[in-house]
Amino acid sequence: MKVLIIGGGGLIGQKLAKSLAGRGTLRGQPISELVLADVIDATTVDAPFAVTTKTCDISDPASVATIIDESTDVIYLLAAVVSAHAEEDFDFGYKINVDGTRNVLERCRTLGTKPVVVFTSSIAVFGGEVPQPFTDDSALNPQISYGVQKAIGEMLLNDYTRKGFVQGRGFRLPTISVRPGKPNRAASGFMSSIFREPLQGLPANCPVDRDFPHFYLSPRKCVENLIKGAELDQADLGPRPSMTMPGRVWTIGQMIDAMTAVAGPEPAKLITWNPQPEIEHILDGWRMDIRPEKAAKLGLTADDSFEDNIRIFLEDDIDA
Amino acid sequence: MKVLIIGGGGLIGQKLAKSLAGRGTLRGQPISELVLADVIDATTVDAPFAVTTKTCDISDPASVATIIDESTDVIYLLAAVVSAHAEEDFDFGYKINVDGTRNVLERCRTLGTKPVVVFTSSIAVFGGEVPQPFTDDSALNPQISYGVQKAIGEMLLNDYTRKGFVQGRGFRLPTISVRPGKPNRAASGFMSSIFREPLQGLPANCPVDRDFPHFYLSPRKCVENLIKGAELDQADLGPRPSMTMPGRVWTIGQMIDAMTAVAGPEPAKLITWNPQPEIEHILDGWRMDIRPEKAAKLGLTADDSFEDNIRIFLEDDIDA
Repeated sequence: MKVLIIGGGGLIGQKLAKSLAGRGTLRGQPISELVLADVIDATTVDAPFAVTTKTCDISDPASVATIIDESTDVIYLLAAVVSAHAEEDFDFGYKINVDGTRNVLERCRTLGTKPVVVFTSSIAVFGGEVPQPFTDDSALNPQISYGVQKAIGEMLLNDYTRKGFVQGRGFRLPTISVRPGKPNRAASGFMSSIFREPLQGLPANCPVDRDFPHFYLSPRKCVENLIKGAELDQADLGPRPSMTMPGRVWTIGQMIDAMTAVAGPEPAKLITWNPQPEIEHILDGWRMDIRPEKAAKLGLTADDSFEDNIRIFLEDDIDA
Repeated sequence: MKVLIIGGGGLIGQKLAKSLAGRGTLRGQPISELVLADVIDATTVDAPFAVTTKTCDISDPASVATIIDESTDVIYLLAAVVSAHAEEDFDFGYKINVDGTRNVLERCRTLGTKPVVVFTSSIAVFGGEVPQPFTDDSALNPQISYGVQKAIGEMLLNDYTRKGFVQGRGFRLPTISVRPGKPNRAASGFMSSIFREPLQGLPANCPVDRDFPHFYLSPRKCVENLIKGAELDQADLGPRPSMTMPGRVWTIGQMIDAMTAVAGPEPAKLITWNPQPEIEHILDGWRMDIRPEKAAKLGLTADDSFEDNIRIFLEDDIDA
């Protein structure tokens, strides 16, 4: 079992790699090799199997050919130009998120080896005039280019799967919170920074009100779901293997109260409340009443309470 | 007002050109020039304004640049590799339907002139496990590559419109019936041939039962809707300018009865009833309980009865 993580240097890629290293198996078979591909050299992980790091530009088919070969059994396609970044740089977003995804799928088709492809989409595919709640049967109506590019990625994944070129499964990720490390260029970055910074004694700004709802998932649960996602039987996925990954909807106020319940009253005092005009139009397009019924039926899960998310951050990212 | 029809040599392109020639105006302004672009040299039309024919391969950006310039005000993007053809030739379908659409939109973006772009999508975007009826808020869940490619085209059109690069409006065409002339490579071809051939004394085969429902529109109504579609104010289209064009759902049996009502009992006797395995999997994925509410609110219309469709065929295509 040879596993490839494209975007292996990113937050989820690294946590997924460590989790696979801890398990040693995937889809009931021992992992023989893990390849971490990214635009920059990814940090390697300690594992009971070979771990290789490779640099790759997925917008270049020749570069994609250097990371996927006949022996690649499972591919995680996590690499993306995220929301605010894709909104600023229209060309780059399409180049990586659309052309890159197509190049990966085309490489699999050319090889004819029908690998499992786990694709991460985003709840940014939802938005606009479509009535809430958003179920797996709602129209995708993204209001930012990133969401459009992810919706196109889902369509491609579904078609390449239907045609038998890959064993695809796509999961629309909730906002991942609490993300450790530095902020990325997602408009949802504040959803982590308002917890991450205050829990470490630093100030952070919240650009929305306390009653703003959010559909979230911890990094730990996200990785668990990505592993379960790879292990699903194709037949159980039906004719549309892209779906929303489970998450939970809480308001910002409830989440801050959860932080206070776990870590005391001091962190919440470090939050400032100022609008950020540069992301306001993105936030306006967000819709958060999301029902991930199909993935839940398939056994994927959400966190129980945002208190868990705070504890998971402290355990996985601060204590470590 | 300079108008370009990409796919100007096709059935709808030619009828649209003739209708524009008859009107002389579009969006309240006199038409000064009409360009008919197609892969092969399109037949020209008599008009009170200049009509130019141009050959173009929309999968080649340089070729697209030869048909769209700063003076192009309205672009009809009708060219497509249709259902059964795109299903047979995977690469060619993506090349024309996805890359071609993107090339047209990119050319507009580069020019910065924000033309009106009328894009024809298809009801092939609907299908699979999504519950009927299909409204404008239903998930697009195509079960053939052609539908996937059209859904991607809609996504691109919506995004380029939102970004202000074009004034886009997309319409999912019902099955056009009765189509004159030779069959194209659409799996829905029988929906015209079972009327067109018998009305001219020729046999034709129907691969589905009498109770098979179909969402249809006459070529004449389709052209009327495409003209209204170009004339809509962008503000009335909302944040998702792709929608289903009005049509009507009748069963094959009802439609044949309508032919008999208009043309007597002889034509129906020329229909044979044999399954066609090569299109059976495409027909299985079709869903026909479709509600084109948004376009209807915007003033686009369907035929009143299939008897009209028979009469329109006889008037527009046989008597002429």
